[in-house]
Amino acid sequence: MDISPKVRLFVDVPLAVGAPVALEQSQAHYLLHVMRAEIGTPVALFNGQDGEWAARLTATSKRGATLVADRQLRLQQPEPDLWLLFAPVKRARIDIIVEKATELGVSALFPVFTRHTAMTRVNEERLRAIAQEAAEQCERLSVPTVQTAGPLDGLLAGWQGDRRLILLDEGGGGRPIAEALAGQTGGPAAILVGPEGGFAKSELDALRRLSFACPVGLGPRILRADTAVIAALSCYQAMCGDWRTPSGVRS
Amino acid sequence: MDISPKVRLFVDVPLAVGAPVALEQSQAHYLLHVMRAEIGTPVALFNGQDGEWAARLTATSKRGATLVADRQLRLQQPEPDLWLLFAPVKRARIDIIVEKATELGVSALFPVFTRHTAMTRVNEERLRAIAQEAAEQCERLSVPTVQTAGPLDGLLAGWQGDRRLILLDEGGGGRPIAEALAGQTGGPAAILVGPEGGFAKSELDALRRLSFACPVGLGPRILRADTAVIAALSCYQAMCGDWRTPSGVRS
Repeated sequence: MDISPKVRLFVDVPLAVGAPVALEQSQAHYLLHVMRAEIGTPVALFNGQDGEWAARLTATSKRGATLVADRQLRLQQPEPDLWLLFAPVKRARIDIIVEKATELGVSALFPVFTRHTAMTRVNEERLRAIAQEAAEQCERLSVPTVQTAGPLDGLLAGWQGDRRLILLDEGGGGRPIAEALAGQTGGPAAILVGPEGGFAKSELDALRRLSFACPVGLGPRILRADTAVIAALSCYQAMCGDWRTPSGVRS
Repeated sequence: MDISPKVRLFVDVPLAVGAPVALEQSQAHYLLHVMRAEIGTPVALFNGQDGEWAARLTATSKRGATLVADRQLRLQQPEPDLWLLFAPVKRARIDIIVEKATELGVSALFPVFTRHTAMTRVNEERLRAIAQEAAEQCERLSVPTVQTAGPLDGLLAGWQGDRRLILLDEGGGGRPIAEALAGQTGGPAAILVGPEGGFAKSELDALRRLSFACPVGLGPRILRADTAVIAALSCYQAMCGDWRTPSGVRS
């Protein structure tokens, strides 16, 4: 009988037939003590490179667990090259941003400091753990990277001009997002969402002048930063990204 | 000098020049003790019918506060006739659904029980308070209604056929959402999002057969219910709703 795995884990090691996989302590704890896995329990594994694999638990110790990969379940698929640049917000909402951006298929997350950003520190490790857990849950084949937080200016100074920057222009000057995205192809792109207090006027003026920037508007209501992130990513994926093709019937 | 109000409140009374407005106790507490308003402090008011008004605080008492409306700031605008039907989920995520749906311009929220809905009770009053607060924050001119929770079957039995039902088909059988929404006008619509466990197969088959149902897909990843709600509403507003027109430069 073919039992489909109930647990899905990201592991940072190569996956191939017969490859042994030693879990780090927190994953072993989750598998053994939260999910109550036993020797032989099937587990799905992915590493961002080798697709998804069916593995089974072969050994446990006081602090660890070892799995062996049996067969490939899915091939690695190309994913949209879509970055999210966001001004860090307070804890509950930054967690929502990272979780949702992962579900919505972002490839890299950049916490960026703007003039009016209230937060001055970001715990990137915590955000990486949230992204990994969200990737495990949403059946992604990769985990987005979480970059070290830094000033927006510096990131834009080294920008590659072929990556379009979709700027959420809360000043109301942007084109309606569906109009701006219509007919666009899915090349490298980034979405930039400012802080809850908005961009400084001079900062917004400078952003609008960037040759690679595309200022867009999200309607007449004021959206919170986390809502704006999810809204813009959804519109992008629906119109330019990997939601354009039917996803196929799931079992 | 014209001071723009920092506080914005929904009140359920008519608004006109010189109209007195007595605040109920919790709003009075918020205005006086959280926002530290004093006699003369400007406050923005809306009631879902008469647009937005500038008012000022004219009297306070131990448990209340009275305002007088001075002048209209914005005319009432027509809003999309867009319902959200959603299977209730656990507390943190149902709060997110109501807050975000309000920001995204839903006109009515219907908590609906499906076969696999884990929750059996909904606190509609709490959800109404969340919707009102979100409406006050996002500068909406209305508060969406929160209907009494009930079975999905019953709601669909009395459905008016001219209201399109956009069904989030997590089974993977739906058309890509941008393709399904392209060229649609913004007539009466509803978006239906199932429970975290998904619809029952027989239930989903029956939904797909409804003449007014339009099954759509949201890409290859599994979205949580709250993510799916925000994603679908955003795509609808961007392509069929009130995000299609430029929102105008905000001061």
